[in-house]
Amino acid sequence: MPKKKLKVIPLGGLGEIGKNMMLLQYGDDVIAVDAGLMFPEAEMLGIDLVIPDIGYVLDGPQKLLAIFLTHGHEDHIGALTYILHQVNVPVYCTTLTKGLVTVKLREAGMLKESDIRLLHPGEVAHEGPFEVQPFTVAHSVPDSTGLAIRTPVGIVVHTGDFKLDHTPVMGQSTDLAKLAELGSEGVLLLLADSTYAEIPGYTPSEKVVGEALLQIMSTATGRVIVTTFASLIARVQLVIDAAAAHDRRVFVTGRSMINNVKMATDLGYLKIPKGMMVNVRELDRIPHEKLAIITTGSQGEPTSALTRMANQDHQHIKIVPGDTVILSASAVPGNESLVDRTIDNLFRLGARVLYNRIANVHVRGHAAQEELKIVHSLVRPQYFVPIHGEYRHLVLHAELAQSLGMPEKNIFVLTDGDVLELDKENARISGQVPADYVYVDGLGVGDIDHVILRDRHHLASDGMVVIIVAIEKKTGRLVGQPEVVSRGFVDIDESEELLQRTREMVVTALQGDDHIAEWGVVNTQIKDAIAQFLYDETHRRPMVLPVSVEV
Amino acid sequence: MPKKKLKVIPLGGLGEIGKNMMLLQYGDDVIAVDAGLMFPEAEMLGIDLVIPDIGYVLDGPQKLLAIFLTHGHEDHIGALTYILHQVNVPVYCTTLTKGLVTVKLREAGMLKESDIRLLHPGEVAHEGPFEVQPFTVAHSVPDSTGLAIRTPVGIVVHTGDFKLDHTPVMGQSTDLAKLAELGSEGVLLLLADSTYAEIPGYTPSEKVVGEALLQIMSTATGRVIVTTFASLIARVQLVIDAAAAHDRRVFVTGRSMINNVKMATDLGYLKIPKGMMVNVRELDRIPHEKLAIITTGSQGEPTSALTRMANQDHQHIKIVPGDTVILSASAVPGNESLVDRTIDNLFRLGARVLYNRIANVHVRGHAAQEELKIVHSLVRPQYFVPIHGEYRHLVLHAELAQSLGMPEKNIFVLTDGDVLELDKENARISGQVPADYVYVDGLGVGDIDHVILRDRHHLASDGMVVIIVAIEKKTGRLVGQPEVVSRGFVDIDESEELLQRTREMVVTALQGDDHIAEWGVVNTQIKDAIAQFLYDETHRRPMVLPVSVEV
Repeated sequence: MPKKKLKVIPLGGLGEIGKNMMLLQYGDDVIAVDAGLMFPEAEMLGIDLVIPDIGYVLDGPQKLLAIFLTHGHEDHIGALTYILHQVNVPVYCTTLTKGLVTVKLREAGMLKESDIRLLHPGEVAHEGPFEVQPFTVAHSVPDSTGLAIRTPVGIVVHTGDFKLDHTPVMGQSTDLAKLAELGSEGVLLLLADSTYAEIPGYTPSEKVVGEALLQIMSTATGRVIVTTFASLIARVQLVIDAAAAHDRRVFVTGRSMINNVKMATDLGYLKIPKGMMVNVRELDRIPHEKLAIITTGSQGEPTSALTRMANQDHQHIKIVPGDTVILSASAVPGNESLVDRTIDNLFRLGARVLYNRIANVHVRGHAAQEELKIVHSLVRPQYFVPIHGEYRHLVLHAELAQSLGMPEKNIFVLTDGDVLELDKENARISGQVPADYVYVDGLGVGDIDHVILRDRHHLASDGMVVIIVAIEKKTGRLVGQPEVVSRGFVDIDESEELLQRTREMVVTALQGDDHIAEWGVVNTQIKDAIAQFLYDETHRRPMVLPVSVEV
Repeated sequence: MPKKKLKVIPLGGLGEIGKNMMLLQYGDDVIAVDAGLMFPEAEMLGIDLVIPDIGYVLDGPQKLLAIFLTHGHEDHIGALTYILHQVNVPVYCTTLTKGLVTVKLREAGMLKESDIRLLHPGEVAHEGPFEVQPFTVAHSVPDSTGLAIRTPVGIVVHTGDFKLDHTPVMGQSTDLAKLAELGSEGVLLLLADSTYAEIPGYTPSEKVVGEALLQIMSTATGRVIVTTFASLIARVQLVIDAAAAHDRRVFVTGRSMINNVKMATDLGYLKIPKGMMVNVRELDRIPHEKLAIITTGSQGEPTSALTRMANQDHQHIKIVPGDTVILSASAVPGNESLVDRTIDNLFRLGARVLYNRIANVHVRGHAAQEELKIVHSLVRPQYFVPIHGEYRHLVLHAELAQSLGMPEKNIFVLTDGDVLELDKENARISGQVPADYVYVDGLGVGDIDHVILRDRHHLASDGMVVIIVAIEKKTGRLVGQPEVVSRGFVDIDESEELLQRTREMVVTALQGDDHIAEWGVVNTQIKDAIAQFLYDETHRRPMVLPVSVEV
């Protein structure tokens, strides 16, 4: 009997940013690391979010035993409700991650039937042939972990999202000693974060931001309004500390920021001096130079608190000259223009605006090249698979590993759905499993396909023209004039003449067909003739949709 | 009689990147600097391009005398055909700019009736009360200029787009001596490029890229494929020089690159050693290590040559491991994800890909903060208006001027349509003129309004549902079943049941209306009921479009 091998199967996050989910399989036993969502790319019109396709563990003999979450960011936990809905397995995570997951499960009405288990760094969970032990890493949300996973063929180290931060703000740095210890023991496979593999050098410490905030709070003559990611609790702490140091009280606004501040305070992650927080009723009585505001809106989200302020549309806060606004975040790819618009609008209102291109008000959460080298040197794995990144990030991380002396044949640049089979002797890509994008749109999960998206693109670019033809049921004869309705194509008030000529073209296109035997043929005939006519007239290509009504 | 003042009226480029156009008016005499287009932002669905609104010079007593072009980039010349179509005035520019403009006018069938005049640096053109003299500036297209404009109230200096490059590749650096001379004479108003006002320090010289290209050509074992902006002739020269130095011949592909290389060679801007160029028939016979390829596609444009290569869809060039691809350009805002996708796809094919985040293969064309300071110090204007930039760039440039000692009251952050009136004694914003975006979509110029764009957004996000109700003309009675047609909303094959229930809902919504007197009322009734029904069922909000046919 051939020896069983370990299978490593990424369902998301390798070849795109987001929807991180990695399967490890031994025999038919499978565990998953993370269950994240991906925010839709610009061309995914109308899509709310994208989740991994877990058909592989639903359809075959293989069985999902449990899900291990490395940390509480959406791209690692955001698909959990959808996935538990399909397969309700235990979920292991740290305290703050559980707090964030609980909010989601409660909203989805799934809290009661879900089995969320705390697993702290150093503790071990046994699931089938797998022994999983989290270790702490520094990242932009507290309680982030990597995982040391003991399997029958050797140890797998999964870094999660991480950076090395020797002066972290909440006391949590990446556990280099643990990585060294695992390295000494012998690691079969390293799976390491590649998000920042393009960037030379080091990611600066969170401490840098604290220094900048202190300096700004001290010199600002009016309010200091800070936005950041709601999960970046360490950053929120820095704002509170800087405000306290300069005798400013703090007002929090924006739903997710209010919720996270409350949750992090309840769980003891956030330390807020007594009497510091300002409620809405007090707000107008605090002098501007004694106030700091923490808010959502770091990504320019249209309905967020900061965007409302920038649009003079916030219920309580009206931006005035003298205000300093700090965007303590970077724009997630795709959000750049929304963020820039918010900055521009704040400047228009007379605020001083500080953002990462012009001030040290943000550091990112991922390891740059020199940090990655340290991890590789400590772990010294037999095999390496770069994870978390667009394809170029994975290749650059692979090249980095090779530059440290790792043989090329031991490095595998996988993309979603690839199956890597390995043991101590051998490793090879042995096949593929389905790992498509599953689109969520409203209540629909997975029902949006390329036809619908193609139609949305067509509708988006030049609108549509509907042509309605009434046909007498008995005789198959045209009744009356065709009707033409358009939206998103031309200015209807100004284009009556074009629409009239379109009606006439429909009649012309039907000429000779004094009785309509086969609607399908006529339909195509009208569609082609009208599409061509409208293109010739306007050089636009609206979707042309002929409809017949039998009367 | 009050003394006449100079009016400065930006129609584009102040508050957005692109569609640069600045009017200077004295009495009723107006000249324009540049006539650029703006590429549509993501939310301008289906729009081909955006041009300035020149209604102000068409409608009033004021008269446009001439247009002066600073250089040949689309955001400075791209609206010229549309504007000359409305008002055919003389256009002044340098040799290469004329070459680029001529291509456009010929394509538009307007070359014959247009009056394009060469005006070299140092020469003076007289138009009404204005004397205009170009001076050379360094920028990313040859023959770029700034303008010294003598007016009855004083000298206006317009920098155009510029950087300081002390070691330019085509011998053209910014004419600091001329700026100093104007400064000594006394400058009333400086209009200076703000595109890069966010960036500290200096923009590196074009020479840096030359060194990188030389190094890459020398070490690459296969083909070196370089993409850059087709107008960046100096960069094309660097590629040719580096190829020549390492005994590589050069193949050019991509329509606009082929055209520009030919034009720049004919005009003497590009020096190509004899026998260096490779034609298509020879292509397969050249060993890879003896070949360099220059191509379009630096912005990931879907139909460009490099994108085709990345998609294994190029007629002549198939990417293989060993190829080195250099993206010698930066992504224009909005194109980032297209460029990243091209890079990823090239990596997938096994190419080595070098781009600006990981190698010194590009420098930009605009002055950073230290360069701006030099220009301000030389020109020492009485008034300053930052031009070319999003609002934040203008504010930061204004702050930079202030940091050099300029009084705040002499600096005006204008946006499109603002009218600044000034003379030696005074300056103030005296009003506004219309300066809307004029959308070009197909043959339509200016006919797309916010209603059409809003409809396109609606259609894009959740598709549409058309409901057709046949009504008997004589009785006003419903005939047969309503018809329901949808696109971009749900999978039609899988949703027959939903559509059937929608038909029934239409009938229900009409209940009580056994004869339809007022279609407008019924229409709204159906629309509201169906929109709500479909939202409840799917949590999507398609455009619902009821249509009645009288039979």
